[in-house]
Amino acid sequence: MGVELESSLKSFLEDVASKKPTPGGGSVAALAGALAAALTSMVCRLTIGRKGYEEVQARVERLLVESEKLRSRLQDLVVEDARAFDAVSQALKMDRSTPEAKQMRGEALQQALKGAAEVPMETCERCLNLLRVLHEVAKRGNVNALSDTGVAAHLALAAAHGARLNVEINLSSIKASDFVADMQGRIEATMSEAEKSHVLAMEVVGERL
Amino acid sequence: MGVELESSLKSFLEDVASKKPTPGGGSVAALAGALAAALTSMVCRLTIGRKGYEEVQARVERLLVESEKLRSRLQDLVVEDARAFDAVSQALKMDRSTPEAKQMRGEALQQALKGAAEVPMETCERCLNLLRVLHEVAKRGNVNALSDTGVAAHLALAAAHGARLNVEINLSSIKASDFVADMQGRIEATMSEAEKSHVLAMEVVGERL
Repeated sequence: MGVELESSLKSFLEDVASKKPTPGGGSVAALAGALAAALTSMVCRLTIGRKGYEEVQARVERLLVESEKLRSRLQDLVVEDARAFDAVSQALKMDRSTPEAKQMRGEALQQALKGAAEVPMETCERCLNLLRVLHEVAKRGNVNALSDTGVAAHLALAAAHGARLNVEINLSSIKASDFVADMQGRIEATMSEAEKSHVLAMEVVGERL
Repeated sequence: MGVELESSLKSFLEDVASKKPTPGGGSVAALAGALAAALTSMVCRLTIGRKGYEEVQARVERLLVESEKLRSRLQDLVVEDARAFDAVSQALKMDRSTPEAKQMRGEALQQALKGAAEVPMETCERCLNLLRVLHEVAKRGNVNALSDTGVAAHLALAAAHGARLNVEINLSSIKASDFVADMQGRIEATMSEAEKSHVLAMEVVGERL
């Protein structure tokens, strides 16, 4: 019942494929980011303690702490995105038979829509952080895991792009123009940095591969 | 024990993040493709039977059959990629104490490496098929699910890129030059078509959003 990390891969995929309102694209984008973070942690762990990587050990240990924090947060965002979507659905179902009820519904809906934009905004920002970690992991990590580093970088960028679409779709129904302008600025700046970090990370992967 | 779709999301993510040899980037790329296919099926199901979509109903029903076939196959490829990787690890552990043993090991390794290149090659090709389905779904699907369509297209392309890296890393150790040249040609052609389909699908998403 609901979106939870205890679901099997199989039943999560079934739920996504179904008509059910959640999990949808926002949760899937966060999950893609979490999978990218998990691969990043794997590469760090395949580097720490390995012969030939003594000099980068301390640095890679810190990168691992960072990628594990990002994984944990992105995993939570899978669930939070579904909850934020549910809040919008609940608001849409509220009574609007009187002018007062209509106004209350409108306010609840606007509030819920802001929440539904803020969750994928955070997903996008965490994916940018992850891409910056990946750029360093690409430079210092185990060369035998470079293809995993590359898969992580491609997935993290796709997750950021997907999260962006979810921010924008919600912004299009939000009336508070200051909020919309602020979020639009943030999402564009985040994506532009994410694209740059992805290019840098993939350049290093290509050079060392 | 092993990679299976019955694992919870949580334990799958833990296993990816660990030092364990599998699941690695190849399985994660196939899973990203499966998630993209699941979103595609969701969009089809949110279109079929809806008011205003009567004219595209028959076509979208066929697209749903297609995306569910691709989802099923990509889900299997998550597991098959781990098995192909294990076969390479097993071959590497074979005895090489005599010239005969060494030759047997070499042959087993070359065979296993071919398998480990063929699995992500198929992942990449299925993702291309999915992107072609997505281009049509973007044109005909429910406008309220356009952001989901876009997330699916971004993920499918990232999965194809990730699979490509896994093909190439295995090709680099394969001695049969005909096999390598053939696979190299296939992977380049597939990626070039995948990029095109992704651009087309995202153009439609942008126009209708």
